[in-house]
Amino acid sequence: KATSTDRSAQLKQMLLSPKLEFIMEAHSALSAKIVEETGFKAIWASGLSMSASLGLRDSNEASWTQVLDILEFMSDATTIPILVDADTGFGNFNNARRLVRKLEQLGIAGACIEDKLFPKTNSLLDNREQPLADIDEFALKIRAMKDTQQDPNFCVIARVEAFISGWGLDEAIRRAEAYLSAGADAILMHSKQKDPKEIEQFMKAWNNQGPVVIVPTNYYQTPTDTFQKWGISTVIWANHNLRSSIKAMQATSKRIYNEQTLVNIEPNIVSVKEVFRLQNDQELVNAEKKYLPTKSKK
Amino acid sequence: KATSTDRSAQLKQMLLSPKLEFIMEAHSALSAKIVEETGFKAIWASGLSMSASLGLRDSNEASWTQVLDILEFMSDATTIPILVDADTGFGNFNNARRLVRKLEQLGIAGACIEDKLFPKTNSLLDNREQPLADIDEFALKIRAMKDTQQDPNFCVIARVEAFISGWGLDEAIRRAEAYLSAGADAILMHSKQKDPKEIEQFMKAWNNQGPVVIVPTNYYQTPTDTFQKWGISTVIWANHNLRSSIKAMQATSKRIYNEQTLVNIEPNIVSVKEVFRLQNDQELVNAEKKYLPTKSKK
Amino acid sequence: KATSTDRSAQLKQMLLSPKLEFIMEAHSALSAKIVEETGFKAIWASGLSMSASLGLRDSNEASWTQVLDILEFMSDATTIPILVDADTGFGNFNNARRLVRKLEQLGIAGACIEDKLFPKTNSLLDNREQPLADIDEFALKIRAMKDTQQDPNFCVIARVEAFISGWGLDEAIRRAEAYLSAGADAILMHSKQKDPKEIEQFMKAWNNQGPVVIVPTNYYQTPTDTFQKWGISTVIWANHNLRSSIKAMQATSKRIYNEQTLVNIEPNIVSVKEVFRLQNDQELVNAEKKYLPTKSKK
Amino acid sequence: KATSTDRSAQLKQMLLSPKLEFIMEAHSALSAKIVEETGFKAIWASGLSMSASLGLRDSNEASWTQVLDILEFMSDATTIPILVDADTGFGNFNNARRLVRKLEQLGIAGACIEDKLFPKTNSLLDNREQPLADIDEFALKIRAMKDTQQDPNFCVIARVEAFISGWGLDEAIRRAEAYLSAGADAILMHSKQKDPKEIEQFMKAWNNQGPVVIVPTNYYQTPTDTFQKWGISTVIWANHNLRSSIKAMQATSKRIYNEQTLVNIEPNIVSVKEVFRLQNDQELVNAEKKYLPTKSKK
Ligand SMILES: [Mg+2]
Ligand SMILES: [Mg+2]
Ligand SMILES: [Mg+2]
Ligand SMILES: [Mg+2]
Repeated sequence: KATSTDRSAQLKQMLLSPKLEFIMEAHSALSAKIVEETGFKAIWASGLSMSASLGLRDSNEASWTQVLDILEFMSDATTIPILVDADTGFGNFNNARRLVRKLEQLGIAGACIEDKLFPKTNSLLDNREQPLADIDEFALKIRAMKDTQQDPNFCVIARVEAFISGWGLDEAIRRAEAYLSAGADAILMHSKQKDPKEIEQFMKAWNNQGPVVIVPTNYYQTPTDTFQKWGISTVIWANHNLRSSIKAMQATSKRIYNEQTLVNIEPNIVSVKEVFRLQNDQELVNAEKKYLPTKSKK
Repeated sequence: KATSTDRSAQLKQMLLSPKLEFIMEAHSALSAKIVEETGFKAIWASGLSMSASLGLRDSNEASWTQVLDILEFMSDATTIPILVDADTGFGNFNNARRLVRKLEQLGIAGACIEDKLFPKTNSLLDNREQPLADIDEFALKIRAMKDTQQDPNFCVIARVEAFISGWGLDEAIRRAEAYLSAGADAILMHSKQKDPKEIEQFMKAWNNQGPVVIVPTNYYQTPTDTFQKWGISTVIWANHNLRSSIKAMQATSKRIYNEQTLVNIEPNIVSVKEVFRLQNDQELVNAEKKYLPTKSKK
Repeated sequence: KATSTDRSAQLKQMLLSPKLEFIMEAHSALSAKIVEETGFKAIWASGLSMSASLGLRDSNEASWTQVLDILEFMSDATTIPILVDADTGFGNFNNARRLVRKLEQLGIAGACIEDKLFPKTNSLLDNREQPLADIDEFALKIRAMKDTQQDPNFCVIARVEAFISGWGLDEAIRRAEAYLSAGADAILMHSKQKDPKEIEQFMKAWNNQGPVVIVPTNYYQTPTDTFQKWGISTVIWANHNLRSSIKAMQATSKRIYNEQTLVNIEPNIVSVKEVFRLQNDQELVNAEKKYLPTKSKK
Repeated sequence: KATSTDRSAQLKQMLLSPKLEFIMEAHSALSAKIVEETGFKAIWASGLSMSASLGLRDSNEASWTQVLDILEFMSDATTIPILVDADTGFGNFNNARRLVRKLEQLGIAGACIEDKLFPKTNSLLDNREQPLADIDEFALKIRAMKDTQQDPNFCVIARVEAFISGWGLDEAIRRAEAYLSAGADAILMHSKQKDPKEIEQFMKAWNNQGPVVIVPTNYYQTPTDTFQKWGISTVIWANHNLRSSIKAMQATSKRIYNEQTLVNIEPNIVSVKEVFRLQNDQELVNAEKKYLPTKSKK
């Protein structure tokens, strides 16, 4: 099984590689395993998706240890790197340090924190205030996290919310530079525009000072090779497994409710055997042969 | 918000009503909310589904308090009754008593326990031993649970695994009668045959001594009105939201992986706004107006 | 067993009664049970003590749900009211609202929140900054908590840190009045002076506008009837079970380490039987007679 | 900070060393830290003590993950090896395997499991049945645990309850040999007699086949050098910090309740500063200087 160090080294390599890389969202051990089985090289543990699956809002309604509980199951069920959406770090530098220690213990490869205030507000919501953190305070938080990690490859990604908060390019650049100086392994530059102009402007001004990660949830119509051309390091597909599962469950529930039979549903869902396979039941079958006494012994 | 008592009274009413009732599976707060929004009157918190979503096997790999953690979120996100798949009760009568107290605290309407040994094995697995519990021990466990509940409507359903273990009709009847005598609010008679003959035999011999619940995962082709005709009280659609979500996430992950774009995915998944709606973000918008100081005050 | 409502009504009565009342610290189910058995009418779940027992600092290093985990055991092991030291409410008004819902679910009688910033710093530490919350923001947080509670007797106590932060009497009064207006059931006025002058000044200026709670950890030499005379409602003995247990365990560990025998320790510690009694083992003995099958049946 | 591997190597060395070694009980991070500061080389995480501190019985009322929650805090607060009282392994071989993986993740050095049935009953209780596990089933459980550990030094200790259950010497030897053959790193031979005759008999018959650990809670009057002479490897002082803390808290609570003042208590308890020291507050003071922005920057 991949160790924490293996995973973090793989994530770091993805950030540094000249090739455009892709990270796919998961919000549970099961969805994380599906991401790995599909062939993706890394998993995005989305704050929006995890909170939604808990029936909560993306406003730090779940405690940071409740998030850890999900991450532990995700990590145990997979071997590829997991990058955690760690919101603002769940408090000040001291809370962020504690988070790093716990993430390393769970075999998580990296954490992304955003320069807003606790409790945070989802960046894609309309008409909500998005006050930014003090730039020095946030840079020192990054430094505290980097000083705390024991695995040299654990990745800390600094997410800049300057565009989200309406501050524009200069502030975005100023913050990205400060966070990179503080030790961030990459910058996640977020934008909620329907087109990627903010990202394009940033990439030109940034001049390749360090790896840049993007989340094209709203500007999804831009072809991927445009991002490659601009020098983006990594794209996060941030919430699509969640949104796909909601669509499916709403449709399945509705059809069973209306038809009062499974006959028309059964062909459109995976088999119970496939569930057992995803649970790796065969390993237990083998182990039972090895570790349960035969009846004659009893 | 519906209290625990409201919910359990509703579940009890479903068990006792002459009409055939339906309970739909969920494994998370989000899927539970979808079940409620669809119109179902109750939710089945499936052990198979919850364990699978945690990346674990349906063999009591999750601790009983890890199951409670999921149930708490499910209960908080919904108002209709939740019936919990409580496996064997997670130990002896004393563990089962503690479980009842905690379920009542979380607003769960009822628990179904099955007459096997801890740790249990999923009933639909092929070629696995399914040793049954001692009938007296299990009946006393039911009684302990009933004696413990403080809400008179909390439902304890006794699941009989005699057919699953290959013991046949007489044992099934003998156990169902013992558990009903011990205080069970209903009997869940399980069968993994592709046709419903075991259930049909049981219903004839049972002669309507008490409410019967079934789980037609394998004999799903039987029309629902056949169940009604036999006098079944309630049908559980036991794992179909999970299996539907797996199908969707596998397809979505694969397509995004292959196409490296969201363009063809976006029309087939719910919008981010729909996620926000399911999270009830609007309530927080209103609350922020009420409870956050206006800027001028600051 | 006392319901949540009973407990909160008792706590409210203590706050409102003309008699000086006393609340004793606990930090675990066991210490809480000892407080109850001693005869105290209520329990203070101290943030300092709970964090120290977890090996953490009193700086919100434990998540709010880790605190809830302790409170759940404390509540289950006792029947008298528990007043929780809820620090700053663990975030903004929305986090505080969620807290209230969970505390009510656990049967906790009330919460005390202090007007500082998250993450908080213990008030008795020397030379540490203790920035205060915005007064309007904090008052609205109190209001959000009061609007959220479903049990009319659940108590929200507003702790004023104006003296701790060096702001003086006027600010203390201004804040106490604002929080009382916002719905607080009582004011906890904190002081870390070795003498009770700040408290005396406050009580004179306060003029009995509402119940006042104090924590005389540092000014412990003042006789209790002085507090009664000033019109104090309730005194919290805030951390003395913890400090007493540390003294005892340090001495016991040291003596066993040095002497390599229990002979001289045994007379100075409670018996194993007393541990069993505190665990209420007898109830289980009785239940086993009732709910375990006799051997002949097996 | 000591890694898991360091700790387990130290524990293994203690088991194998010719010198009689001592392990001291703790039940919380705080008591664990006190054990370490006192000079002990290892910590016994007692099931009795941990359950009592949670207000629960030593009958697997706490879930195994609730025990892990305590162990995580204990491990984080200390650097010496922790040996966990893991009862029966919390289920079958598969549950015990999962336990090993989680204990290693938390930096726990070893686990002791006893050959009884889940849920277990405390061995020192009078007049309670103590049915033993099937010897083959238990030996295979030991083997499964040893096969699972990734750290070669992680210790699995097999506790034999043959004397506790009244089976006598032959059964004790037979079981000890079977468990050692299955891979156990040491045998814990338990006895609840007031004198150590059972232990003496066992040691003579055992003939030094492998390291033996004892728990002289009831036969505490035997001098330690007698144990050394018999060839015992390690003595566990199994519950004395708990029992000492209960005595202290009962006395402190009673005195404060009766006297309504702290004046006579204060000299007999540690200072608040000592609590801060145990919490390692100074490290946070230093970190705040490093990682909080100075005011002028703000
Ligand atoms: Mg997010
Ligand atoms: Mg099940
Ligand atoms: Mg406090
Ligand atoms: Mg024990």
